[in-house]
Amino acid sequence: MTPPPAAGLTVWLTGLPSSGKTTLAHGIGERLRAAGRRVEVLDGDVVRARLAPELGFSRRDRAENVRRVGYVAHLLSRNGVTVVCALVSPYRDERHEVRALHDGRFLEVHVAAPLDVCAQRDVKGLYARQRSGELRGLTGVDDPYEAPEAPEVVVPTHRQTVEQSLDAIWEAIVSRSP
Amino acid sequence: MTPPPAAGLTVWLTGLPSSGKTTLAHGIGERLRAAGRRVEVLDGDVVRARLAPELGFSRRDRAENVRRVGYVAHLLSRNGVTVVCALVSPYRDERHEVRALHDGRFLEVHVAAPLDVCAQRDVKGLYARQRSGELRGLTGVDDPYEAPEAPEVVVPTHRQTVEQSLDAIWEAIVSRSP
Repeated sequence: MTPPPAAGLTVWLTGLPSSGKTTLAHGIGERLRAAGRRVEVLDGDVVRARLAPELGFSRRDRAENVRRVGYVAHLLSRNGVTVVCALVSPYRDERHEVRALHDGRFLEVHVAAPLDVCAQRDVKGLYARQRSGELRGLTGVDDPYEAPEAPEVVVPTHRQTVEQSLDAIWEAIVSRSP
Repeated sequence: MTPPPAAGLTVWLTGLPSSGKTTLAHGIGERLRAAGRRVEVLDGDVVRARLAPELGFSRRDRAENVRRVGYVAHLLSRNGVTVVCALVSPYRDERHEVRALHDGRFLEVHVAAPLDVCAQRDVKGLYARQRSGELRGLTGVDDPYEAPEAPEVVVPTHRQTVEQSLDAIWEAIVSRSP
């Protein structure tokens, strides 16, 4: 495989719950590590517990969570780390804000499985809980998801294998000018 | 000057308000940059605005703030960055927790000007606001400060110049085994 450039970069995976973000983030993380890169995978749930345990899922709290993770990714990536973020990050405004902060070191990946596929996978049981009335404000169902307008990569995880999605993301990473 | 080792490290400056933490943090940051190291200075006030705008100054909120900054310092330092943190961080427990997270990559500096000197300097006017009754819970006055029991460095900023304090911290950084 072509090695990735040595400069830091943030690879931002956005998409509905159960679209495949976490799987792809760890897969890309492994490939990058194997290529000798410094890597941090910031997975939405994990990083929320460390950086934003008090935040909920209101419009405002989601925005603040995205901003906060974006700031940490910015600090890491400007120090040569490739940061792979897996966050629903449903709103365009905050994703744009995070991109702007990165001064070019940003690659947006839309993990684009359609809602019915995600609801069927339902890795964490969120869609079932929403249907049963136990949960409100689930992104894509009764809370907005604003798909990226111009992401660097789109991976339709319902139509291709994990390996194919990883290849597409990898290609975008290595083809960036350093 | 002897160059610092190439491994990541967190240099944690703790001390009363106006003890000199920010000045020393930026001074050390400059020296490290001049030596070609990757550096991030995480200054208490700045980083609070980015990572913890909702937190106040209760025991619990202070603890959470310290933990959060400590986590970010951990992520950076394990990727080869020298992180210089300037935080009052008044409680031993959270400083120990942050140290433990770092797995050896941690150097605690007690910026140890006595209270009367800090109150006289009063860089941000906090001591005056406390005296006038406008502010409550000022560390060292009507809120606890638990001095480190075994910091790697103590800098008595009331008895030596900034350069002398920087030299002492620098010495501790370069003398660490990599």
